[in-house]
Formats: sequence, C-alpha cells, structure tokens
Amino acid sequence: MKESLKSQLHEIIFEADTPKGKAFDVLLLVAIVLSVLAVMLESVESIEARYGTILKFIEWLFTGLFTLEYILRVFLTKKPLRYIFSFFGLVDLFSIVPTYLGIIIPHNTASLATIRSLRLLRVFRVLKLARYVGGARVIIDGLRASRPKIIVFLTGVIAVSMIMGTIMYLVEGKENGFSSIPRSIYWAIVTLTTVGYGDISPVTPIGQTLASFLMIMGYGIIAVPTGLVTADIINANKKRDSNDDVNTQVCSNCNFDQHDTDAKFCKKCGEDLIKK
Amino acid sequence: MKESLKSQLHEIIFEADTPKGKAFDVLLLVAIVLSVLAVMLESVESIEARYGTILKFIEWLFTGLFTLEYILRVFLTKKPLRYIFSFFGLVDLFSIVPTYLGIIIPHNTASLATIRSLRLLRVFRVLKLARYVGGARVIIDGLRASRPKIIVFLTGVIAVSMIMGTIMYLVEGKENGFSSIPRSIYWAIVTLTTVGYGDISPVTPIGQTLASFLMIMGYGIIAVPTGLVTADIINANKKRDSNDDVNTQVCSNCNFDQHDTDAKFCKKCGEDLIKK
Amino acid sequence: MKESLKSQLHEIIFEADTPKGKAFDVLLLVAIVLSVLAVMLESVESIEARYGTILKFIEWLFTGLFTLEYILRVFLTKKPLRYIFSFFGLVDLFSIVPTYLGIIIPHNTASLATIRSLRLLRVFRVLKLARYVGGARVIIDGLRASRPKIIVFLTGVIAVSMIMGTIMYLVEGKENGFSSIPRSIYWAIVTLTTVGYGDISPVTPIGQTLASFLMIMGYGIIAVPTGLVTADIINANKKRDSNDDVNTQVCSNCNFDQHDTDAKFCKKCGEDLIKK
Amino acid sequence: MKESLKSQLHEIIFEADTPKGKAFDVLLLVAIVLSVLAVMLESVESIEARYGTILKFIEWLFTGLFTLEYILRVFLTKKPLRYIFSFFGLVDLFSIVPTYLGIIIPHNTASLATIRSLRLLRVFRVLKLARYVGGARVIIDGLRASRPKIIVFLTGVIAVSMIMGTIMYLVEGKENGFSSIPRSIYWAIVTLTTVGYGDISPVTPIGQTLASFLMIMGYGIIAVPTGLVTADIINANKKRDSNDDVNTQVCSNCNFDQHDTDAKFCKKCGEDLIKK
Repeated sequence: MKESLKSQLHEIIFEADTPKGKAFDVLLLVAIVLSVLAVMLESVESIEARYGTILKFIEWLFTGLFTLEYILRVFLTKKPLRYIFSFFGLVDLFSIVPTYLGIIIPHNTASLATIRSLRLLRVFRVLKLARYVGGARVIIDGLRASRPKIIVFLTGVIAVSMIMGTIMYLVEGKENGFSSIPRSIYWAIVTLTTVGYGDISPVTPIGQTLASFLMIMGYGIIAVPTGLVTADIINANKKRDSNDDVNTQVCSNCNFDQHDTDAKFCKKCGEDLIKK
Repeated sequence: MKESLKSQLHEIIFEADTPKGKAFDVLLLVAIVLSVLAVMLESVESIEARYGTILKFIEWLFTGLFTLEYILRVFLTKKPLRYIFSFFGLVDLFSIVPTYLGIIIPHNTASLATIRSLRLLRVFRVLKLARYVGGARVIIDGLRASRPKIIVFLTGVIAVSMIMGTIMYLVEGKENGFSSIPRSIYWAIVTLTTVGYGDISPVTPIGQTLASFLMIMGYGIIAVPTGLVTADIINANKKRDSNDDVNTQVCSNCNFDQHDTDAKFCKKCGEDLIKK
Repeated sequence: MKESLKSQLHEIIFEADTPKGKAFDVLLLVAIVLSVLAVMLESVESIEARYGTILKFIEWLFTGLFTLEYILRVFLTKKPLRYIFSFFGLVDLFSIVPTYLGIIIPHNTASLATIRSLRLLRVFRVLKLARYVGGARVIIDGLRASRPKIIVFLTGVIAVSMIMGTIMYLVEGKENGFSSIPRSIYWAIVTLTTVGYGDISPVTPIGQTLASFLMIMGYGIIAVPTGLVTADIINANKKRDSNDDVNTQVCSNCNFDQHDTDAKFCKKCGEDLIKK
Repeated sequence: MKESLKSQLHEIIFEADTPKGKAFDVLLLVAIVLSVLAVMLESVESIEARYGTILKFIEWLFTGLFTLEYILRVFLTKKPLRYIFSFFGLVDLFSIVPTYLGIIIPHNTASLATIRSLRLLRVFRVLKLARYVGGARVIIDGLRASRPKIIVFLTGVIAVSMIMGTIMYLVEGKENGFSSIPRSIYWAIVTLTTVGYGDISPVTPIGQTLASFLMIMGYGIIAVPTGLVTADIINANKKRDSNDDVNTQVCSNCNFDQHDTDAKFCKKCGEDLIKK
C-alpha cells in the first residue's frame, strides 16, 4: 500500500508522460520562474523598498517547496547517491542552499538562488517532449565530440591574449589605461572575442595598429571553433537519425531517462518501468 | 461580367507572373519605401519643423492607399479569414493600424507604421522571382528544423546570463554600476553576445577575470547555434534540390502560393488556377 | 616587328607566368603599397607638416606611372571596351582619377586614391599563383550561389532593425539619446550586428529588456548567413575539385584568364595563347 | 654507460609515454604557469611594492631552470639545428631571452617572458594524450588547407577597411574624431570586425548610414571564413578518421613526433625508437 503511494509519487515527480506528471512539471516551471523573479526584483532598491516583505515571503515559500521536493526526490529514488551527485541533483541542491546561507552570511548571498534558473533546462521535457530532449542531446553530443579541439583552441586563444596583452602593456603603458599586464590581458580578451567595451582602448598609432591585427585575427579565427562544432554536429546528427525515438520515462531505480518508447524494463538496471 | 473584373483584380493584386501583376508589385515596393521614409523623417525634429505638413500628407496618402488595398485583398479572396490570419495578412493589417491609432493616442504611436517595412519581404516575388522565393524557403526550412535545438540553446544562454549576472552583482556591487540583479543580467547578455556597449564594465580584478571567462565562453559557444543551423540548412538544401521549380501563381480560393509550374489546379483546394 | 613588341608588352603586363611578367607584377605590388601609404600618411597632420612635399611627389609619381600603365593596358588589349568595363578595369581607372580630381575639387578628394588598395587583389596572381586564384574563385562561387538567400536575410535584418528602432524610440525617447527614428534604427543595427559602440545605449529597464532580446536575436541569427554560405561553399568546393588546374595565362584578345594548363587557344574566342 | 644516461634523459624530457616523462611534463606545466603568474603580478604596482623581491626571485629561478632545460634539449637531440629552428624550439628560446634582456634594456622588456605561455600548447601531450594532439592536428590541418582562401579574404577585408576609412575621413572629418586616414581605417577595422570600442563613432547622419552598411557587411561576410574553414575541417576530419592512432613517442634523432603506435623505427630518419 505504502509502496504504491511511493511509486505514484515517483511517477508524478520524475516522469512527464502521465497527466499528473505533466501537471507537476508545468507547476514546477511556473514556480521556478516566479521564485527567480522574486530574487531578482528584491535586488532592485526601489522595488525592495515597497514590496520587500512580499518578495521575501515568495522567496521563502518557494524555497520551502523546493526543499520538500528535493527531500522527496532523494527519498523516492532507490539509489539516492546517484541522484544526489548527478548534474540535475546538484542543481536541485544548489537551488535551495543560498537562501538558507543568506541567514548566516549577510552579504546578499541569498541572491545566488538565481542558480535555480538552470532547473528550467530539466522542464523542457514537458513542452513538445521528445523533440526538445533530442535537440539538447544533439547539442551535448556535438560539444562532447568537439571538447578536445575546443580546449586546444581556447588554450591557444589565451596564450595569444597573454602575449598581445604584454606587448600592448609595453607599447601603450600606464598613462593610456594599460596599467598592468593582467589588465592588458583583460583588454586583449575583450578585443579578441570582439566584445569591445571601450573601457580601455589603444591611443598610440603603434597600439592601434597592433590592436587592428588582433581584431582581424579574432574575426578570422572565430571560424575555427565554429567549423569544429559544425563538423561534429553533422556527425552527431547522422548518429541520431538512426535512433530518433525518445520518451520521458525515468527508471525509479537508477534514474536513467533514455528508454526506447517500447521499453518495459530499464535497459541499465532491469527495473520494471510500468509497474504501479 | 462583374466576376471577370474581380478575377482580373485578383490577378493584379495577388500574382506577379503577368505584366499587370508585376507592375502593381513594383508600385507597391516604391509606395512602401516612400511611406516608411516619411514616417522616419517625421521623427527628426529639424526636418519635421520644415517639411512636417508634406510628410504628414504623404503618410496619410499611403495609409489610405494601403487601407484600400487591404480591403480589396479581403474582398477578392474566397476565404478571407484564412488571408486575414496568415502572416502577411497580419503584417498588412498592422501596417495601417498605427496611423489611425495615432489620432486617438497622442504618444507618437503613429511611428509604429514602420512595421510596414516587413511588407518588403513579400515584394521579393517581383525581383528575379523564383530564386529569391526559393532562397527564403531554404532559410525558413533551416530555421524551422533547428528551432527545438535553438530554443534549448538560448534557454541555456539565458540561464548562464542569470547566474553570471548574479555573481557579478555580488562581486562588483552597486558602486561599479552593477546596481541590481536585472541590470547585471543585462550586462551579462551584452557581454555573452559579444555586443559590449561598455555602459557597464567590470572594474575589480576578480570581476574582470570572471568577465574574461564569460567572453571566452560567449566566443566559443556561438559556434553551437551556427553548427546546428548549418547542419540543418545542408539538409534543407538537399530536399530543395529535388523540387526546385517555383512560380508566383497564387490560388484565388485559398491563397496557397507554392504551385508547380505546370499546375493547372490548386493542389490544396482544387481551384482552377488559369481560368479568367 | 611592332606587333612583336606589342605582344611582348602584353605578356609583361597581363601575364604572370613568365619571369618578366612576374617581375612586373612584383613591382606593381610594391608601387601600390607605397602609393597608398603616401596618401594615408599625408592625412596625418604632424607628418604632412614635415614631409608634405615628398609625399605629394610620391603620390604624383605613382599616379603618373599608373596612368601610363592604364593607357598601355587599354592600348594592348584587342577589345579595350571589355577591359575598361570589367571589374579590374574600373578599379584601375578609379585608382588614378581621384588624384586628378584633387586639383579641381579642393575637399581632400585626392585621398580617395586609397581605392587603389583594391588592386592588390589582382596581384595575388603573383604569389603562389594557382592556389590563391583558386581560393578566390571558391569564395566568389560560394558568395554568388548564396546571394539570393543573403539578400533575403539582410532584408529581414533591416526590417527587424527598423521595427525595433521605432519601438526603442517610443520606449526610451529623446532624453536617452534615441532622438529620432533614423538614429534609433542606427542603434538597432549597431546592436543586432553585435558591434555595440555604446555611443547610444538603453537606460530604462524596459529598454534594456528589449535590447537584451535584440542582442540574443542577433547572436542567434548570425548562424543563418553562416550556415547558408557554408553549405554553398561545400557545394562550390565539390565542383572545384573536379577541375583544379589554374594558370595565369591571359588571352590577349578577350582577357579571359581561366584557361586549362594545356590550353593552346583561348576557349572563349579562339585566340592563339602561345604565339609570340 | 653515458649514452644510457643520455637516452634516459631524452626519454624524460622529450616523451610523455613513460611515468618519468609524464611526471616531467606535469612539473613543466606547473613551472610555466607559476613563472607566467610571477611575471604578470610583478607588473601590478600594489603587488610589486609588497612582494617584488619574491616575484623577482621566482622569475629568475624558473628562467634558470628553463635555460638548463633548453641546453639539455639542444644537447640531447642528435640534430640540434632542426630542434632549434622548429616552432617549439624557437618558443623555448624566446621564453628565456626576455628575462636576460631585461638586465641590459631597462624598459620592462623582461615582461615579454609571458611568451612562455605558448609552451603550454606543448604540454597538452600530457593530458589525455592522443585525443588532444589529434584535436590540435585537425585544427592545424583545417587552417593549413584554408590558408590561401583566408589570405585572399583578409586582403579583401583590409582593402574594404581602407576605402571605407578614407570615405569616413572625408564625410565625418577631424572634428568628429576621424582625424586622419590611418585613424579612420583603424575605426573601420574596429567596426567591420564587430569589436566596436566606441572610442571613435560616427556622429553625422551620412556617417551613421555608411557605418550601418559597413556593420551589416561585417555581420554578413564573417560567414565567409567560417564557411571556408568549416568545409576544410570536414575534409580534414575525413582524412583523420582513416588513421586515428596517435602516441607520444618522439624520435631522439629528428624529433619527429607523429609515429604510428606500432612503429619501432622513425619513419622519417630510420632511428630506433625503442632502444634504451
């Protein structure tokens, strides 16, 4: 009897295939958006002055609900440790911790609760389920395949920024805003990534010439990561094409969530997926 | 007899294959450009002071003509509701509404008439017809195929901006321009998208280091949507290659406009396409 | 006899396969760089004050030489009109006109002579000949194939900039720098293309929210032209692979310069390519 | 006996397959990061005032060690000249020279020692060896294949910047910051590459219109290098797929480091790879 309640709760909280599971996920979506909004608005002085008490109440209400949800998730899963240390398990935990920390440490740490916006990624399973989950998987597959190349590329970018930053520090000097090497490297990154704040910008002709080279370089080499990721996404797409069925069933034992639509047992641990 | 006039008007207004239809579309193109220019120039104070009356007259003249055209379009189509709620039907409507609204509501709302610049997209059918219509379709097909992935990606981007914005709000604080979390998130979006206005920029060493990470991240992850869209456009291209014939005939019954060149009847509703 | 001199001059000026032709192209390269530098430095006040006379002399010297070269090119080609109205023919002409215009019109028009930097593109035939000419052709083929799609895309970008510019003009208003619709559209383009000068930037919360949407949009849709061009370049590459031999022979009759390496007669006009 | 010590040292310094070689590379990684940090922090005035002596000591300590390592590398390789003039040989040399130069030339030249951050690229062989080396090779292959096209493209970009810079110099003039042609060209590059500092920005309506065209152009043509590199990386990927085995053995004779995993002799010079 109790076991049945537990499995029913598991279905509501972990799955999105059933009406109840879907309703729960939609409510969760609304709750996350509202609570993040409350945290954000609280930081605006004029709003805080007028609605501070209400916003504080909303923040604590949702933090309480999320805490309850987190405890239930840990309690309902058969292998809690695996859930706790999974990506979404950690996000769920870090979503509630800052508000509690805010009591102990004064310095606005409660506002770190905006980390719960990451939970939105989970709720994608609610809307047009399979297509979005599939889309996310293509992105992740593409990025994973590109990782070694991207890391090599970014190390090169950082090395170039360091050298160009040092050269500009020598060329422009303290009087033009390039007051130290770390600050000049910050400028080089701002320039190479084409952000270009303009808080520091070269003044001398030599500095402007060097900066021009750096910009053209940044403009040209952005093609490299793009090319790498594109090539890998094309590959990842080909693989996905062959097995495109996704659903939102989640194993109550090991939380594996990539079951084929006709699966009756978890292919990772053999747990019965449709028992009630 | 009257029916014949109606079908002739339909040909002039809706099609671009016949000389008269083409002439109408070219005139429409000129009228749109002139009327948008008039609305734009009216907002420049020095010009408004000198030519205000003429510009007002031009704006009202074209709004009148566009209103007439809209009524004719609704009247000539056999299924008016389908036209009214189609993308271009709504654009046609919103192109004339702001000018009329400007009489009731004082606050410059008439200038929203610039929305009629969207009508230019329709008139592409005039110039080198098939190729541009085909080009637009490749773009739309590519974007449609990429939509779920792009939405997942942008949700990730917004979640990262929220978290980084909150962290920077804590690190930099009100005295350096990061006066509230929404404002800091605005800064994070400005930075991550490599826009970099420089109206807010980090001042402390820790803030600049965090900003550097955010920039390198933004520089690296732009590769993701590009890769996704590229892969989908390559796919969409392949599909288009097999049926590349486009013409500009439009069904007088249901406004479907993607007929094969040898089509004599609308493949959607069976209407005779070449009857006069 | 005279004919032989003419054909020898044609070989020197138009071709880059022979030692003399190559030497001429290298000299031309140096002359272009020097003359553009002279024009540029002349505009720097402090340099003009000291070396003005020498720079003026260099500018006129090279303009004279380029004029002579232009006359020779017209004189040596059998179909001068075709050369005069070709892309490089027009560039050659506009490279010398500004200096002469500078005598009649006072307003610094002579500095437009920097247009001769475009001539550098021609001289690429000198360095590692075939590969660079081939590279340029892949770029041009890719761009040509993408043109209709790029034009549709850019029209969409401009329409979006117009509408967003108008909305921001209404939202932010004159007191925040959005002083007219054209100026607001300028801001929208600066933002959508991720340039982000920061000379105008939104101040109100609603304005910053709208701007954030525009930035994320600009960050996302840049993927579209990239995807289009990439797909077309992959196609253009495939075509080039089949006929990858390029040389630098140029027909003395019609100036066609894409002959197969074993060609003895121009495939466009039948002119003998190797007669002396 | 002595030969054995030499070959053992070669293994430690040049290879990363053996435990000792790996330990050496990890130590080198730490040493590079620490010494670069020391050079960087020394340039921050407040830190230099307090910890100047320690930082100076660290800098000299690591420079000494790197000098020793460089001498060993030259001494251990059978063909020292080939090492000295290889890419990493030059990087190793330029990593130690600035510190020594700093004694002779006063002007902060010692800070150029940040060039040693480029050495980090070498140490990638330590972490997850083959995949990163393979990733780097895909990038290099892609870039090498794209080089002629990228050079043609960048020449075009520079030519456009020159012409647009000159036009803006004539249109905006000295009073709006466009004080000379080189400075205007610097602005054009800042704009075309979408960096957009905002230190110089157009003020007149004509200037803003021209700048808008330049921005849309820059936004559109960035697709070209991306497309080129993507196409070439897809090609390079295909080639790599066929021979994906990489290891970290390095020939003691010629320093060639791309041996097949089952190679017993260097395929470049025939040196025995596994002799001890």
